[in-house]
Amino acid sequence: MRLARHGTTGSEAPLVSGPDGAWRDLRPVCDDLNPDTLPSLLDGLELDALPVVERPGRFGPPLSGIGKIVCVGLNYRQHATETGAAVPDEPIIFLKSPDTVVGPDDRVLIPRGSVKTDYEVELAVVIGREARYLPDEAAAAACVAAYAISNDVSEREFQLERGGQWDKGKNCETFNPLGPWLLTADEVPDPQALSLRLSVNGDVRQNGSTSDMIFGVFELVRYLSQFMVLYPGDVINTGTPAGVALGLAGTPYLRAGDVVDVEIDGLGRQHQTFEQA
Amino acid sequence: MRLARHGTTGSEAPLVSGPDGAWRDLRPVCDDLNPDTLPSLLDGLELDALPVVERPGRFGPPLSGIGKIVCVGLNYRQHATETGAAVPDEPIIFLKSPDTVVGPDDRVLIPRGSVKTDYEVELAVVIGREARYLPDEAAAAACVAAYAISNDVSEREFQLERGGQWDKGKNCETFNPLGPWLLTADEVPDPQALSLRLSVNGDVRQNGSTSDMIFGVFELVRYLSQFMVLYPGDVINTGTPAGVALGLAGTPYLRAGDVVDVEIDGLGRQHQTFEQA
Repeated sequence: MRLARHGTTGSEAPLVSGPDGAWRDLRPVCDDLNPDTLPSLLDGLELDALPVVERPGRFGPPLSGIGKIVCVGLNYRQHATETGAAVPDEPIIFLKSPDTVVGPDDRVLIPRGSVKTDYEVELAVVIGREARYLPDEAAAAACVAAYAISNDVSEREFQLERGGQWDKGKNCETFNPLGPWLLTADEVPDPQALSLRLSVNGDVRQNGSTSDMIFGVFELVRYLSQFMVLYPGDVINTGTPAGVALGLAGTPYLRAGDVVDVEIDGLGRQHQTFEQA
Repeated sequence: MRLARHGTTGSEAPLVSGPDGAWRDLRPVCDDLNPDTLPSLLDGLELDALPVVERPGRFGPPLSGIGKIVCVGLNYRQHATETGAAVPDEPIIFLKSPDTVVGPDDRVLIPRGSVKTDYEVELAVVIGREARYLPDEAAAAACVAAYAISNDVSEREFQLERGGQWDKGKNCETFNPLGPWLLTADEVPDPQALSLRLSVNGDVRQNGSTSDMIFGVFELVRYLSQFMVLYPGDVINTGTPAGVALGLAGTPYLRAGDVVDVEIDGLGRQHQTFEQA
């Protein structure tokens, strides 16, 4: 099952799509996709009774009211290498504010004064059940509701050269395109077997697989639950594969006018134009 | 004007108090104190028409629906020195998830496996107006709605010895007691002239003044607005003065049963008992 939200910014309406691939209006079931409504939707829906939406509008973020976004740093072996960092012994975690989330095809703003705005295709994990001190990966798997594409946009100077904590380069306005849809976990038999791709102006920059993750999705959820409570609607950005501008020859950071396409198997495609803030 | 929320956890009702010091029921004006209602309350209220609440219940967090909590690290000269860190050239910032917020007198949980749970009295700044690329401190001052006490509870091993980013030790469940009330900015003529105190089991551990801040409140708001948008209801934890357990002889970290009292001039008092999670 795919879940999405369409319409103008701030007025999105919920959509659902089942085996026939048609988008259907979810409003007879709930007003919005958010942490309150998401868990109940996972128990199964009578899709046929819902009206088909022939031409959805703009896709917004596929979830509203996200409580927190937990990000995992350096979680792909080749990406850790390209940034010159050691492969971490345990997950590196930091936070991104949910107010950075925009739709998958919305414009992304290059911050004023930025010369090192970078992209990061990531598998986003959406939590469906409260996770607190989970004992093992099986318990963690039961807390995962869905997956989506996340572009964990990053300003490398702000992140790495302006005071030591990464959050400063991760929370600029519009820095987390999410979606186009959530794919429910029952349709992702193995989250460690997904291809991720990102291109800039048609030039492929990242082309990896979640099989290269150092810490897999369920291990991340189990691990995080030892340090914080994960609530329904929380999102985990699970790290990015090699190929970010920071690690490439000539460090080709993003400039106003650049077009970024982001894709993960089964999770759709994002298409963003970068603009100067 | 003081603004607060009282009642059982998750069902708090809003309160207001003006020059006569009486708490009054704010429900005739708004259902709750949150980022949507806060800005309009600042324009002035007819307090006399509101019913007096003779015996308020438990004080909860004085604001619901907080969007993000931005924390400033090492922002007092003596605290930077005690932790062995250099005085920073520019603010060090990290994030705390709003789901860590509890009421001022609620129990605080020592995480499982923690041996270095620490306290930090901080002046919390509540934003009342959107702040984006502010030009100067005067513009920043206009964006500050109110002040409150925050205890930025921290697990030092998780923060400093488990992977490099501080967020891991800042986001444990119940790690941000906030309140008891918001004091509106018009009643704080100089936010750099407030005394802050924290004691553990009656023993004074922190006794500082916001005059020792490296970066003052308005400079912090101006600075942050260059890296992220601050929205109404966002909270800034502005850093802690010297005296945290990490910096004291014998590093007297918190243990189950410890009682912590936290106080800032005009902002009331917090009283927490620490328990094992």
